[in-house]
Amino acid sequence: MFFISHTFTRPLGSLVAGVRALEVGDFRYSLDARGSDEVAEVTRAFKGMRDSLLKTQQELLEAERLATIGRMASSISHDLRHSLAAIVANAEFLCESRLSTEQREELYQEVRVAVNQMTDLIDSLLEFSRTRESLRLTHANVKDTVEHAVQTIHSHPEFHHVRIAMTQQGNSTGWFDPKKLERALYNLLLNACEAVASQAGEIEVELREVSGGVEIRVCDNGRGIPEPVQGKLFEPFVSYGKENGTGLGLTVVQKIVQDHGGDVTVEKTSVAGTVFRVLLPLAAASETTTLPGREAKPAPPLMARTKQVQSE
Amino acid sequence: MFFISHTFTRPLGSLVAGVRALEVGDFRYSLDARGSDEVAEVTRAFKGMRDSLLKTQQELLEAERLATIGRMASSISHDLRHSLAAIVANAEFLCESRLSTEQREELYQEVRVAVNQMTDLIDSLLEFSRTRESLRLTHANVKDTVEHAVQTIHSHPEFHHVRIAMTQQGNSTGWFDPKKLERALYNLLLNACEAVASQAGEIEVELREVSGGVEIRVCDNGRGIPEPVQGKLFEPFVSYGKENGTGLGLTVVQKIVQDHGGDVTVEKTSVAGTVFRVLLPLAAASETTTLPGREAKPAPPLMARTKQVQSE
Repeated sequence: MFFISHTFTRPLGSLVAGVRALEVGDFRYSLDARGSDEVAEVTRAFKGMRDSLLKTQQELLEAERLATIGRMASSISHDLRHSLAAIVANAEFLCESRLSTEQREELYQEVRVAVNQMTDLIDSLLEFSRTRESLRLTHANVKDTVEHAVQTIHSHPEFHHVRIAMTQQGNSTGWFDPKKLERALYNLLLNACEAVASQAGEIEVELREVSGGVEIRVCDNGRGIPEPVQGKLFEPFVSYGKENGTGLGLTVVQKIVQDHGGDVTVEKTSVAGTVFRVLLPLAAASETTTLPGREAKPAPPLMARTKQVQSE
Repeated sequence: MFFISHTFTRPLGSLVAGVRALEVGDFRYSLDARGSDEVAEVTRAFKGMRDSLLKTQQELLEAERLATIGRMASSISHDLRHSLAAIVANAEFLCESRLSTEQREELYQEVRVAVNQMTDLIDSLLEFSRTRESLRLTHANVKDTVEHAVQTIHSHPEFHHVRIAMTQQGNSTGWFDPKKLERALYNLLLNACEAVASQAGEIEVELREVSGGVEIRVCDNGRGIPEPVQGKLFEPFVSYGKENGTGLGLTVVQKIVQDHGGDVTVEKTSVAGTVFRVLLPLAAASETTTLPGREAKPAPPLMARTKQVQSE
């Protein structure tokens, strides 16, 4: 047995070290594959595998990049072309000399609307080029932000009739970016409104204080999320049965919530409705100076604490 | 020794099979990691590594997707906002009632120019959502396509003075998509024009018949490609010292050439100039019915043949 250990331990030990290095992403770890025994053969196979894996990974990333550009282009081109057509038509009318001042003003406003839609689209895309350092943390109440988002939703004529209720438990004040959070909540509410039946639509927003932050649930009595898209709901350019939109709504929600160090999940979905759950850390005043500098990933200790509270 | 082989061969054989499976991207290959000997330990380490590698890869892809959206958004938003500002300004002027018909027409044309610029941008982005099946193969002469591209370049006032010569060896007719190839050649020429010194700019386009296709070289006497970007020249959103542009010019060239089953490379670059080389397969008339159906990757047999001819 000592003889066996002597023959195998060193090369096998080197292979294990190479395996462990690859586990943390080190594709260059130096491996000794000399010799003609079985271990040398395994090591050689491992080295070959590592090389082709690295190559495949780079090709995958390249393909993903081009595919994303393509998907993004198709997804935005429809909206952009629509706005551009409106601009050309209205500008052509404006060319007419026999128009009243009111008619002119109206046509000009139509152009402005189309331009604003395009600007909004560009702005929402730019959300993805922003790092979490661009958050403008303000001491505010999440309840007020929810109310703003609800008001904006209700200003859409098509969603006038949708009943949106809000309940609150405990405190919901703290440091966050109210403008960003409003955009996230608006997207979740828009989603809910589009899911509910047009006449009996009911949406409830639940706010609940948890340790270190607030839990926000957006519940609707809509038709539920279709099975095929459930797993990839937060991926960009995934939309389910909607006519409009870039398929970026929920991706933006996730980006904003994660930038705050939080997380968004689908808590449940069925034909009886859907519940989205947002866990939003609200940094206490004393923490704010360190918050923007934290690593980009959701902060684990806070999330752990929050989960503990829930399971109580 | 027989004892050793008996103890190790089977588990080691299973590990090798798992390594080989991973080499071709199979992360699920079933591995037997029972036991407490060294091989079982290596196998367990390998399994753990495989799981975290798959997870890392998925996270990498997700991050790449979001980063691409962000980069694409920043890269196009500048151009789009510029056009939108022009549209608003001109539409506002058009609101004025005391304008002559000519003035109106002029303002309207300005709006059209801005709209067309945006449409062009969207079109060039949409190139990435098209598969090679969308190629419109026509029997044509590459020489004519080069000449069209040169004419378009010379129509830019800033490139009037740049001398562009063309040489040809052998035949250059065959089946390809002339519109797409013209866009690719135009991008290469634009790149060359931007690289050459404004007063002594000289560009040469060399066409040379090779077995199964044509070789196109675009040579300039410009300042060369800076070291830092040489390795990632065809990646999207990489631009070197240019004020304008989306950084997609060379990515589009590569996409179009690869859709034709060809390839584009930088043959050489130095302070004395740069040579881009395009290898374009020109399907013979008899091949055209099968060409659009071929796999998406560059066709290996043809490329092999072409390389053989060159090394003669």
